[in-house]
Amino acid sequence: MTRVSSFSVPIRVYMEDTDAGGIVYYVNYLKFMERARSEWLRCHSLNQQALLLENTQLVVYRLTCHYAKPARLDDDLTVTAEVTDLGRCRATFDQTVEREGELLCSATVEIACLNATSMKPKQWPTQVFKVFNISDS
Amino acid sequence: MTRVSSFSVPIRVYMEDTDAGGIVYYVNYLKFMERARSEWLRCHSLNQQALLLENTQLVVYRLTCHYAKPARLDDDLTVTAEVTDLGRCRATFDQTVEREGELLCSATVEIACLNATSMKPKQWPTQVFKVFNISDS
Amino acid sequence: MTRVSSFSVPIRVYMEDTDAGGIVYYVNYLKFMERARSEWLRCHSLNQQALLLENTQLVVYRLTCHYAKPARLDDDLTVTAEVTDLGRCRATFDQTVEREGELLCSATVEIACLNATSMKPKQWPTQVFKVFNISDS
Amino acid sequence: MTRVSSFSVPIRVYMEDTDAGGIVYYVNYLKFMERARSEWLRCHSLNQQALLLENTQLVVYRLTCHYAKPARLDDDLTVTAEVTDLGRCRATFDQTVEREGELLCSATVEIACLNATSMKPKQWPTQVFKVFNISDS
Repeated sequence: MTRVSSFSVPIRVYMEDTDAGGIVYYVNYLKFMERARSEWLRCHSLNQQALLLENTQLVVYRLTCHYAKPARLDDDLTVTAEVTDLGRCRATFDQTVEREGELLCSATVEIACLNATSMKPKQWPTQVFKVFNISDS
Repeated sequence: MTRVSSFSVPIRVYMEDTDAGGIVYYVNYLKFMERARSEWLRCHSLNQQALLLENTQLVVYRLTCHYAKPARLDDDLTVTAEVTDLGRCRATFDQTVEREGELLCSATVEIACLNATSMKPKQWPTQVFKVFNISDS
Repeated sequence: MTRVSSFSVPIRVYMEDTDAGGIVYYVNYLKFMERARSEWLRCHSLNQQALLLENTQLVVYRLTCHYAKPARLDDDLTVTAEVTDLGRCRATFDQTVEREGELLCSATVEIACLNATSMKPKQWPTQVFKVFNISDS
Repeated sequence: MTRVSSFSVPIRVYMEDTDAGGIVYYVNYLKFMERARSEWLRCHSLNQQALLLENTQLVVYRLTCHYAKPARLDDDLTVTAEVTDLGRCRATFDQTVEREGELLCSATVEIACLNATSMKPKQWPTQVFKVFNISDS
């Protein structure tokens, strides 16, 4: 059964992603998931380099990850990202890593939008609210 | 207040650990925690290279991580590892990353002991049970 | 001026690739270059996971790299790979990392084909020689 | 034969450092070498975080690396760093990675001291010249 998700990116496994156990090193799935979140942000006109220049920084403040099956060198993976909750200064992403429709890894990743200097919460840029048809006033 | 833990390793932050936000990249705390678990295993006479040669592989199958404050380049961190639950084929570690007694990051990491070929659960080597004064029979 | 190369892959810069200096961490360009070599190998029917299962391992044994300009978060890079010399058990790649035709980084990477157990040189699989119209007898 | 070097740091190999070939991933030796350079700088009162806050950035602009033998999981390595040439805005390090006196990897790494904003060369902080008994006037 192929799972359905609103947003996904393809990611190929390279040698850099693997470990001596012959599988993808477990923390690297979290890098794959951030790539998917970055592309989701890009699709919604949020460029993180531009945000940094505006003194806005997105940080992960909580994550839960469950590993079901390992990926291996040269695998072609599909990494999904779906926003399941959006606050004024934070968002929750549900994410999966799949290989040919088989679930390898799933995670819930909570990110905060911060003032990069003070590291205090800062409201999302306006376009994020527009995407979700939420008023930012 | 300095937290108390039964096992810890010192880790210094290098450029490789940081990101363009000027802080330690969030997945790298998980690398730091694995270093602490590896040293815990080593203290209990478990060498992962030797385990791999015996076709035994330790893998993380679930983790929960909460990030409280960021670490920065050149910081001297203390990373703890404490086994809070031990099954015949798995263990749960509670771990923290601290800087001068201040909690930066905490995690619960569940690892499984697997047959490296079949990726099926495999009983821990005997010395693990001895450490915890548990019978493996 | 856009440079011409026989083979290239597009690579986008993510947070994982950057460091506290606000630029791509210098060793990560070498990961980008390996991705391009892996795709080159794939285009020539060489899958590294399949090679490992046949006890054949490709390793870098020498590299020279020159860094001209830094890449930054969200940059879209082009990474080239060109084989400039091929021996029976080794190959030399000339590689570049470019951004909109501007050279950021160039390298010469020498790789060896090894028996994965003995770590001794091993002749390339036959299809590599066919690509270059060289006899392997 | 144990090689002699003026400065070295011990580094243990963890799972994060290895790849599916069962050896240390080749770019990670360069991370180990940067750790040794960072400790060398620290020994000479140069803290890179403090330098960044003064808008001074150290970057690698050229490196040559030769890999002789692979390191593996759990190996205890010695990584050396020796300054062989010092200019007003740059330095050349000769570095090695050794295991029980056996040379695994050697490199020449050239670094530049830059203004972090303009990315133009900037003279080393005064204490660097004092270390080498060179006048900075």
